[in-house]
Amino acid sequence: MAIIESIPNVSEGRRPDVVERFADVIRKTSGVRLLDYSSDASHNRSVFTLVGDYEPLKLATLALFKEAAAAIDLRTHTGEHPRLGAVDVVPFVPIEGATMEDCVRLAKDAGAAVASQFGIPVFLYEEASANPLRKNLEDIRRGEFEGLAAKMSSKDWAPDFGPGQPHPSAGASVIGARMPLIAYNINLNTDRVEVAKKIAAAIRHSSGGLRYVKAMGIKLEDRNLAQVSMNLTNYQKTPIFRIFEIVKREAERYGVSVLESEIVGLVPSAALIDAAGFYLQLERFGSEQVLENKLRGS
Amino acid sequence: MAIIESIPNVSEGRRPDVVERFADVIRKTSGVRLLDYSSDASHNRSVFTLVGDYEPLKLATLALFKEAAAAIDLRTHTGEHPRLGAVDVVPFVPIEGATMEDCVRLAKDAGAAVASQFGIPVFLYEEASANPLRKNLEDIRRGEFEGLAAKMSSKDWAPDFGPGQPHPSAGASVIGARMPLIAYNINLNTDRVEVAKKIAAAIRHSSGGLRYVKAMGIKLEDRNLAQVSMNLTNYQKTPIFRIFEIVKREAERYGVSVLESEIVGLVPSAALIDAAGFYLQLERFGSEQVLENKLRGS
Repeated sequence: MAIIESIPNVSEGRRPDVVERFADVIRKTSGVRLLDYSSDASHNRSVFTLVGDYEPLKLATLALFKEAAAAIDLRTHTGEHPRLGAVDVVPFVPIEGATMEDCVRLAKDAGAAVASQFGIPVFLYEEASANPLRKNLEDIRRGEFEGLAAKMSSKDWAPDFGPGQPHPSAGASVIGARMPLIAYNINLNTDRVEVAKKIAAAIRHSSGGLRYVKAMGIKLEDRNLAQVSMNLTNYQKTPIFRIFEIVKREAERYGVSVLESEIVGLVPSAALIDAAGFYLQLERFGSEQVLENKLRGS
Repeated sequence: MAIIESIPNVSEGRRPDVVERFADVIRKTSGVRLLDYSSDASHNRSVFTLVGDYEPLKLATLALFKEAAAAIDLRTHTGEHPRLGAVDVVPFVPIEGATMEDCVRLAKDAGAAVASQFGIPVFLYEEASANPLRKNLEDIRRGEFEGLAAKMSSKDWAPDFGPGQPHPSAGASVIGARMPLIAYNINLNTDRVEVAKKIAAAIRHSSGGLRYVKAMGIKLEDRNLAQVSMNLTNYQKTPIFRIFEIVKREAERYGVSVLESEIVGLVPSAALIDAAGFYLQLERFGSEQVLENKLRGS
């Protein structure tokens, strides 16, 4: 059985009874496990984390769209977080026994079904999008629900599936496939935030650094430490150990050492096993040698 | 559900039909999965690898003893490998959701049942043994089946369970609990085997090194390389990264560098994740942050 993760972001975070109904339709989908969900009232948004195989996830996605489209009206929705639809974003993430190609296929399959069943336009993003201008979620969402009708009148913004204008109350949705994100921070043995900012600029993709790194330098006021705070968007292609070693070397340039690093939230075991392999100079090693993989026959 | 591994070693490796019957009684035990088994004719011995929860493993162990005691007669058994019983050794190894204490309890529980159901004396070993003179398998097995009756006549060698003399045809058995073994080698950028031998002597427990390391220096003739070949008997207390770093430092002393390292066979993911944590200086990290653990609710 393949394990795919899906993390739908829904534009409702103030009515707990409504959020609970969304959680319920996910829970009731056979073959799907709801791992976690949380709401933010100021964002007026909830995030669900579910896992399952291809078909069950598709069914859970459609069930969630049905419930959310009935309960949410973007015309009266307010909140700090940018959004353009009732079910705003749905990424599919390959975890185990599934490839990125499987997740791209699932995004297209679910996107087509959402468009045809609910009349909601769907934009594909990240790995599911073939259009380089429409890979980034931020680009697709720019203008938000309020600017969507005007945006979609340009031929650059015809949706991948569904009608050429927004659904009156449910807006549009962004569905795609991506690698698991890793939130990774490196704390420096200094209180000089400018050192962290320079290192962040050196390491992040947007200013010339590694391709799958987003980074910023911040000050941890409570500990009086500078931190390079990062999001790693593809740990296979830009591995953690390379980032760590570059940050360590850049810090030396300023007479600063690395105090520690930290992973916030979840990390796939493979990301850490890759790091062990690098430092231990492991050769002839395969994931089938990891006992847990053998036990589960994967 | 807990996952415990058991690796019974049985004194039969020349009659494939008999070995197949042993495999069958394991396979037929509900809740147990037979991962692997192999026979060595010159050793006249077979090794089975099975996993399951506490009770199913106990039942599989008893079923195997029943079949093996009926099929094997130590009085006519020959083979290169030292042995003192039909089912010679049974280690229980904690893998997931089970502690070493669980495995010690299982070893005692299964040992008592073997003794009472089949009249076979049982010696506890490794973590299951409270007697420091009877922890090592080699010490217990010294003298083999042929010397067992004389050995057991000493009060130092009264068994932990069962009669004070060997079972006439099935001998005695050694049952215990231990950590998973890791077979780990470090290849040096040199053909000087004496460098590998000196490093092995520095790192291994028996000559003053790390507690849970067995090591020897050998020459890989086909690659013309010296190798430090090791068995790691407790990766939690003597972690891989510490061994690697010490070997690297000792090699420097001889002007030699580490070419690569290798893991032979299986390794628990935690052993590699610990190494990643060391090199990445990870703080505030727990195994519950590993995605796969979260997925399986362990």
